[in-house]
Amino acid sequence: MSTTPLHPSKAADTATFDRVESQVRSYCRSFPRKFGRAENATIFDVDGRAHIDFLAGCSSLNYGHNDPDMRAALVDYITEGGIAHGLDMHTDAKERFLATFEEKILKPRGMDYRLMFTGPTGANAVEAALKLARKVTGRHKTVAFTHGFHGVTMGALASTANSYHRGGASSELAGVDRAPYDGYFGDGIDAADMLAQMLDDPSSGFDKPAAILVEPVQGEGGLNVASAEWMRKLEAIARKHGALLIVDDIQAGCGRTGTFFSFEEMGISPDIVTLAKSLSGMGLPFAMVMIKPEHDIFGPAEHNGTFRGNNHAFVTARVAIEKFWSDDAFQKEVQAKGDHLAARLETIADAHGFSTKGRGMMRGIDAGDGETAGKVCRACFEEGLIIETSGAHDEVVKVLCPLTIPRAQLDAGLDIVERAFAAVCGKGEARDAAE
Amino acid sequence: MSTTPLHPSKAADTATFDRVESQVRSYCRSFPRKFGRAENATIFDVDGRAHIDFLAGCSSLNYGHNDPDMRAALVDYITEGGIAHGLDMHTDAKERFLATFEEKILKPRGMDYRLMFTGPTGANAVEAALKLARKVTGRHKTVAFTHGFHGVTMGALASTANSYHRGGASSELAGVDRAPYDGYFGDGIDAADMLAQMLDDPSSGFDKPAAILVEPVQGEGGLNVASAEWMRKLEAIARKHGALLIVDDIQAGCGRTGTFFSFEEMGISPDIVTLAKSLSGMGLPFAMVMIKPEHDIFGPAEHNGTFRGNNHAFVTARVAIEKFWSDDAFQKEVQAKGDHLAARLETIADAHGFSTKGRGMMRGIDAGDGETAGKVCRACFEEGLIIETSGAHDEVVKVLCPLTIPRAQLDAGLDIVERAFAAVCGKGEARDAAE
Amino acid sequence: MSTTPLHPSKAADTATFDRVESQVRSYCRSFPRKFGRAENATIFDVDGRAHIDFLAGCSSLNYGHNDPDMRAALVDYITEGGIAHGLDMHTDAKERFLATFEEKILKPRGMDYRLMFTGPTGANAVEAALKLARKVTGRHKTVAFTHGFHGVTMGALASTANSYHRGGASSELAGVDRAPYDGYFGDGIDAADMLAQMLDDPSSGFDKPAAILVEPVQGEGGLNVASAEWMRKLEAIARKHGALLIVDDIQAGCGRTGTFFSFEEMGISPDIVTLAKSLSGMGLPFAMVMIKPEHDIFGPAEHNGTFRGNNHAFVTARVAIEKFWSDDAFQKEVQAKGDHLAARLETIADAHGFSTKGRGMMRGIDAGDGETAGKVCRACFEEGLIIETSGAHDEVVKVLCPLTIPRAQLDAGLDIVERAFAAVCGKGEARDAAE
Amino acid sequence: MSTTPLHPSKAADTATFDRVESQVRSYCRSFPRKFGRAENATIFDVDGRAHIDFLAGCSSLNYGHNDPDMRAALVDYITEGGIAHGLDMHTDAKERFLATFEEKILKPRGMDYRLMFTGPTGANAVEAALKLARKVTGRHKTVAFTHGFHGVTMGALASTANSYHRGGASSELAGVDRAPYDGYFGDGIDAADMLAQMLDDPSSGFDKPAAILVEPVQGEGGLNVASAEWMRKLEAIARKHGALLIVDDIQAGCGRTGTFFSFEEMGISPDIVTLAKSLSGMGLPFAMVMIKPEHDIFGPAEHNGTFRGNNHAFVTARVAIEKFWSDDAFQKEVQAKGDHLAARLETIADAHGFSTKGRGMMRGIDAGDGETAGKVCRACFEEGLIIETSGAHDEVVKVLCPLTIPRAQLDAGLDIVERAFAAVCGKGEARDAAE
Repeated sequence: MSTTPLHPSKAADTATFDRVESQVRSYCRSFPRKFGRAENATIFDVDGRAHIDFLAGCSSLNYGHNDPDMRAALVDYITEGGIAHGLDMHTDAKERFLATFEEKILKPRGMDYRLMFTGPTGANAVEAALKLARKVTGRHKTVAFTHGFHGVTMGALASTANSYHRGGASSELAGVDRAPYDGYFGDGIDAADMLAQMLDDPSSGFDKPAAILVEPVQGEGGLNVASAEWMRKLEAIARKHGALLIVDDIQAGCGRTGTFFSFEEMGISPDIVTLAKSLSGMGLPFAMVMIKPEHDIFGPAEHNGTFRGNNHAFVTARVAIEKFWSDDAFQKEVQAKGDHLAARLETIADAHGFSTKGRGMMRGIDAGDGETAGKVCRACFEEGLIIETSGAHDEVVKVLCPLTIPRAQLDAGLDIVERAFAAVCGKGEARDAAE
Repeated sequence: MSTTPLHPSKAADTATFDRVESQVRSYCRSFPRKFGRAENATIFDVDGRAHIDFLAGCSSLNYGHNDPDMRAALVDYITEGGIAHGLDMHTDAKERFLATFEEKILKPRGMDYRLMFTGPTGANAVEAALKLARKVTGRHKTVAFTHGFHGVTMGALASTANSYHRGGASSELAGVDRAPYDGYFGDGIDAADMLAQMLDDPSSGFDKPAAILVEPVQGEGGLNVASAEWMRKLEAIARKHGALLIVDDIQAGCGRTGTFFSFEEMGISPDIVTLAKSLSGMGLPFAMVMIKPEHDIFGPAEHNGTFRGNNHAFVTARVAIEKFWSDDAFQKEVQAKGDHLAARLETIADAHGFSTKGRGMMRGIDAGDGETAGKVCRACFEEGLIIETSGAHDEVVKVLCPLTIPRAQLDAGLDIVERAFAAVCGKGEARDAAE
Repeated sequence: MSTTPLHPSKAADTATFDRVESQVRSYCRSFPRKFGRAENATIFDVDGRAHIDFLAGCSSLNYGHNDPDMRAALVDYITEGGIAHGLDMHTDAKERFLATFEEKILKPRGMDYRLMFTGPTGANAVEAALKLARKVTGRHKTVAFTHGFHGVTMGALASTANSYHRGGASSELAGVDRAPYDGYFGDGIDAADMLAQMLDDPSSGFDKPAAILVEPVQGEGGLNVASAEWMRKLEAIARKHGALLIVDDIQAGCGRTGTFFSFEEMGISPDIVTLAKSLSGMGLPFAMVMIKPEHDIFGPAEHNGTFRGNNHAFVTARVAIEKFWSDDAFQKEVQAKGDHLAARLETIADAHGFSTKGRGMMRGIDAGDGETAGKVCRACFEEGLIIETSGAHDEVVKVLCPLTIPRAQLDAGLDIVERAFAAVCGKGEARDAAE
Repeated sequence: MSTTPLHPSKAADTATFDRVESQVRSYCRSFPRKFGRAENATIFDVDGRAHIDFLAGCSSLNYGHNDPDMRAALVDYITEGGIAHGLDMHTDAKERFLATFEEKILKPRGMDYRLMFTGPTGANAVEAALKLARKVTGRHKTVAFTHGFHGVTMGALASTANSYHRGGASSELAGVDRAPYDGYFGDGIDAADMLAQMLDDPSSGFDKPAAILVEPVQGEGGLNVASAEWMRKLEAIARKHGALLIVDDIQAGCGRTGTFFSFEEMGISPDIVTLAKSLSGMGLPFAMVMIKPEHDIFGPAEHNGTFRGNNHAFVTARVAIEKFWSDDAFQKEVQAKGDHLAARLETIADAHGFSTKGRGMMRGIDAGDGETAGKVCRACFEEGLIIETSGAHDEVVKVLCPLTIPRAQLDAGLDIVERAFAAVCGKGEARDAAE
């Protein structure tokens, strides 16, 4: 790529957006281009310029943009007049998805869950999961964690930790007792033991919870990683106190960490799992709640929604599973790519005295503060790389590229990241610059 | 059609659904077939049998299943590699939708709104609208109405009146003062005057609301119709007390009542309008909040969501508007069809001493009780008609067919309804039977 | 009395109050004197001037200030070293009160209740009653009424209708569905039938309540009077829907309406009754919840409080009951006095085109607006009468004198009221003046 | 005292209580006698038997039962016809209290507060404090602590940690973020630093609080003692984040810890202080909120209550302050007595391998578990000593005797405690027995 800026921000004509769209729009501010086509890890703007996508729809595009097999299957489905909207009626597309998910995902992992299709957003899946946990237990409180992100509808938002999003409620958010995530208080302090103490103590002020709601990796919260041991402790705490363990695998699931579920090698068995984002495989709106059979007690339509069960998504989601999860080839490839990503990020971080965070293909560099991380991302975008920050202070430069990104393009993107850090932080003087 | 049942319930093999899908599934219980293809008002099951669709995705398919133009545009878009998932970045597909909506919908109606793309469910749009109204006003309570339905996520559910859905929260639903809908207490009593009295009275116990949230026609609530005068009173009450008027046009909008917005001939100017269901035109998940410019005060991503701005839906929604709303031909056709529907339902209802309800192409027969209405719907399904009930007691047999249904098919469907009422209620003896 | 103002406001030295007491103080603003002694219906300021008391501690002094028998008994008790503070231990004073209340109040009325001594405020009794009703029913919502007043602690305040007091919470007040009080929507509309319709309707948005909480006469709300028929309807509604009927008799009880309980001739049997204010007889802090035996299910100290069971109050409350409720003489006297009061108020009201409100010795004149009523009260105070307003707009001039007030003093006070109305409203020109 | 049980539980005739009083009664179950008179630290049952009072109305009787000077003043006041109930009007009794409190308590300590008289319960004072803090800050959340006890009305109860009392709400308790009290997580962990981290972190899930509500010593929570350093940290956190610091000194105040306020030697300046319990001096219901002048922003009667400003209590409270707080003699006596108490409890605890807790005259022995502590208290009562447990598991035997208890009687009581521990735990074998 040329070193002259390929993507001057003035180029895009955004008058229509400025005139008609709400101020709530956000990513378009970081990436002020007008985009048209996309293929795997490349997004093209309407002027034909290619951008490497290290954001991937916030992990909604684990298999890249417009996977050819999914695209072909979806085009065939539409062309044949397949039902697009069928409420929650039985459809052929749904049946094939159910059978495939059972066969390729659940059975090989020895998992037994019922699948609930909620409104096609992660937040809706979280809302359903929380409602169900309260119905199962007859309790109303949930334990959620520092830096957790679970969506911004009122039920989910009460569990979300971020104050900017919480403030958007302009109302009291109730029903959650907040506990520290793994490592929150530093190395010497076991956050799970703290939660255990609070729940064992009848006078701690923590109520017996309906559920403990946790992300094995906190994507929005800054790529914080929970250890398997910590997750097992959470499970034990939940069991001891009659609470359900809900794993929110919306961002970390669907292969992002190297296995289909981010928790599957942790030796835990969640009562409820939420999935969305990459579940459809092609970025179509789709969400699902996995429920242990004994907890599958919602009455018909007790939680409902017009778009529950998106048939287009059933088609692409089935193809995604058949294509990528029929054997362990993809999983091994992702793990290897994740190791490579880790190594390269370590090198970049070390050069500036920063540290890396994350797991699998969900990794980033903690740049110390949001200003630095923001400058790095802007510098990347000038070179044609779409990349974002996360964390409480937006201090983590986060790589969430498609898992299917070609190795060369991954390296090209990381080269841009490396140059951007150097440009922003100087050579090995980052710490000083940041302080 | 033959009078022998075309659709014996035993025919469908639902073993996969029974084994893998959650018990929460609902419509599949009323229509125990396995469906595959669909075209306009006809749904085909996998055995090739045709069903007339008088449910239309609960008004999500106002333009029928798989409109050929939308389908073609979507296939083209996918084939060309158009971006499916772009978060809320600027995309070509979004820009074209914005421009079209502005040109064909807003301008001709003299409306000035900013469009906010929320998570692609009606509930999410309602959540965003309520949060915004609270932010604008600095208040936390909302007025919502008897028989209102606004979704089942916690913020929306607090406004939803139905006790079955409310019970699903297994938690306290706060923040709503409940007012009677137009006509709720019978003819002599003006429900808007009651609300006015409550809000004028500093000791009524009703708090000054952030918003008054209302559906001009209550679809789920039993096809209750608000008069224009009543809606104008609500607007005046909202203005007087500094509350925003939020019109939830999710089910009644997009042409269902004969005009694009159900309220556009009422002489009101809502502060916020929510749209979803038929907005995408083809049944794809899509939702939008229309906001008066002066209230467009959310910060970037203050309300967010991974699937906000579904690009496939931008494509089909644009085609829907261009095709059906470029002139008044479709509107007139719908109005005429609605009159025809009204007349035929009147005849059927009269024959059994029942009454009709609704407006435009959103009409039904109040069968007095849920048992009768349920029997009628089951009898209809035996003859190949998909139709559902609504109302507090599921007592209304509700016709929500595509607005694009051919006249002959509409009549064929209504013939089935007529026969079903006769079979269930006898000839003109309904009242006796029901009592 | 002289016609020259006896009580110029400048006389009292309130420097200490101004310097040390909080701005929240209130009645001292209406009656800017410094008071010292009091006897029956007369309060003396420190300068020795006598004021007639038509406020009576907001009905906390039904037997007047410093009844000689209560005073003597209390002095004896203190002198003998009787326990003042005994938590909820068994004390002699409590036992004697329990036995007397059982013998003189419960038995003659055929009532069977358990007595719970809460923290010695009416609000605390209401809080306990609501908590108990939720525990008994397993539900969380309460129905409360327009213009109801039940205290300002958070649980009670949610039921209180007044917006000024509600605003003092600076927080969301949840858990209450608000229903119109008897007559709220005017003569033609039966407010109880409305509530019945809301609760019968599974889609009204009203949740099945734990309790219906009602004052038979709304003292703070403006002397609104519920009819016996309406109260019986409420009881029937409560029974039908499995809710408890809680009668808040804090202001209207203890003889204020002419019988010990304000509801005892209504043919109802509340599940819970709250009492406070005049229960101690002498104005000492004291509150009680009466509970039907089958609902007496709080565990030991599940609702507690340091000052539950004020032993000084047990002593005076016992004397009050023995002295005034051993036979029906006092009751008859109060009823006769109430009739007299009613007649005189009618005359005054009629002279100015106003109407009267209330029941028994809890009556007033609706002066149309708060400004007029306030002027009347200020004019009264200039003549040595302590009297206050109530109602949503402070529009009711309220007579709450001791039930024991001598007839001549009652008339003297009413003469002042009459003159004040004449002075403020002119002679029979009130309506014009108010408009 | 004799070793034969002086107080067989069968002796008291409790039939009236059993028949008429609610099951919620509690302390009478631990001390099943019927009590009549009391004097300083001695309570006499109706059969004339003397009991030493180590409970003192849960610290409501710091100056003992029926102090002769208070008693005399109160009898005089009543005899002279002093106003008992005056709402919040200016009374002579109130003025004298205000002036005395200002002169003897505030001025010598360099404190500037406005005094608000709430409903006469500690819970009511806490409710008022929380409402005020929300009004001042415009925020709705409060930080409260593990093992905190602040009362059981809904607003206060949300802050109370004890699950038994919280359960009594039978409803969701919202508005509180729970933080660990000083020492909660053990020696190495600074609980204030944790809170600081949570509030500094915009994505912790803790909302910016209106107030931090804390007891310097947690009486009900198990005699947990906060260090001055920790309290200063809390104050600094509150200041940094714009929250008010509310010190709940209801149980620990009024001299219990050796100074009038429990925090006065800590170098902090709370925004709000709540007092109740021993404030009246004689156990009369009385509560007060001290407010920094700049926060004194409640409107007139915005928080109100019929019994705010108990005039009998004004009289006795004034005498208490004049008598005990005019110089430092009492304070020194209490401190010396507290040291003695500490030493004797250490000896007893050491003998059984237990530890002591508390501060000043608010101390106890942690008996390891509730069963042991309960046995000790029952054994004490058999010997004529009234003493109770506290703590999350009722595991602390708590000495809360009057501060005025004669040294000999204190020792007599402690002898009983010592014998009871020996009887229950054996000689030095406690740890084994408890395990």
